[in-house]
Amino acid sequence: MSDYAEPIEKLIDEFRKFPGIGPKSAERLTYSVLRRSREDAERLSRAILEVKDRIRSCSRCNNFSDLDPCAYCRSGSRSGETICVVEEPGDIIAVERTREYRGRYHVLHGALSPINGVGPEDLRIRNLLERLREGEVKEIILATNPNVEGEATALYLARLLKPIGVRVSRLALGLPVGSDLEYADEVTMSKALEHRHEL
Amino acid sequence: MSDYAEPIEKLIDEFRKFPGIGPKSAERLTYSVLRRSREDAERLSRAILEVKDRIRSCSRCNNFSDLDPCAYCRSGSRSGETICVVEEPGDIIAVERTREYRGRYHVLHGALSPINGVGPEDLRIRNLLERLREGEVKEIILATNPNVEGEATALYLARLLKPIGVRVSRLALGLPVGSDLEYADEVTMSKALEHRHEL
Repeated sequence: MSDYAEPIEKLIDEFRKFPGIGPKSAERLTYSVLRRSREDAERLSRAILEVKDRIRSCSRCNNFSDLDPCAYCRSGSRSGETICVVEEPGDIIAVERTREYRGRYHVLHGALSPINGVGPEDLRIRNLLERLREGEVKEIILATNPNVEGEATALYLARLLKPIGVRVSRLALGLPVGSDLEYADEVTMSKALEHRHEL
Repeated sequence: MSDYAEPIEKLIDEFRKFPGIGPKSAERLTYSVLRRSREDAERLSRAILEVKDRIRSCSRCNNFSDLDPCAYCRSGSRSGETICVVEEPGDIIAVERTREYRGRYHVLHGALSPINGVGPEDLRIRNLLERLREGEVKEIILATNPNVEGEATALYLARLLKPIGVRVSRLALGLPVGSDLEYADEVTMSKALEHRHEL
């Protein structure tokens, strides 16, 4: 006899397919569904199908959206002179939270990672180059993650894009605001020293 | 304009209803659904409804099961003389993993927690008492969690059940196997000292 009833085991298996969800979390999520009302479970079940049916990848910037082009690409109040290049659609939200960026976006859907077999051809770079060919773009802000893969991707893109004659910039690396010097790791600290600016 | 497209926001909201899932995790889960195939999303969506429709609470032991009585209560190879009382259905799996316990179970679906307004009437204690009245049970093993709520629940049940004339025992508290004395917290360490046994 298996430890779980079959429908429970099935849902645990489905939840385990999510990144970062191990067997324990999948079990917790499943029991939580069991504790919900039937209507609540229906709402979740429907929302999953709806997100698949209504959300597409924007053909210009690759952002997930229910519109194509997406709201960022459509917006008349955003400047087409700057493109902020991010790894994932969720990163756009992080930039938007600053309420300071009024340009466009481009989502790569990943970062270079030779170890995991992710090369330039696996990233959505081709339609970025097409957008540059339109001639409006003056600056590309590389907002990939400040880790090994993100840095490699930024370097690769910088080498690819600079010859086209567009300005290429990279997000600043340094101490996070509100942090404590005592707890800063040495790599962040050395970046903060390296990129120090005069007052 | 909201930062998320509406179907995305809706699914994020649904995922946030799970315990331990914050806004960041809910967003990650949602984007992961978007990356799945439509068939994969359908399978997840269906498994959620199926678990709600096919799984019930066992009328004897309150375990989640597709059978009533559940497989543990039905099994002819398990002794009805011992009942292991746990807080949640998932705890049964932890006990089963030892492959050493061959008695029955009883799920309380919670633990006493005056701070959170959980009293004895909120736990499934009544049908435990009914099972004891049948006269077969000789020992109750209190396998509630080794934390404040679990200990309080164990003490409450011990006081309630002992007068009935049944043997009441509690899981041992002490150093976990494979751990390091250096990293043991003082409460665990003092329990390990208190419950030391002669060799």
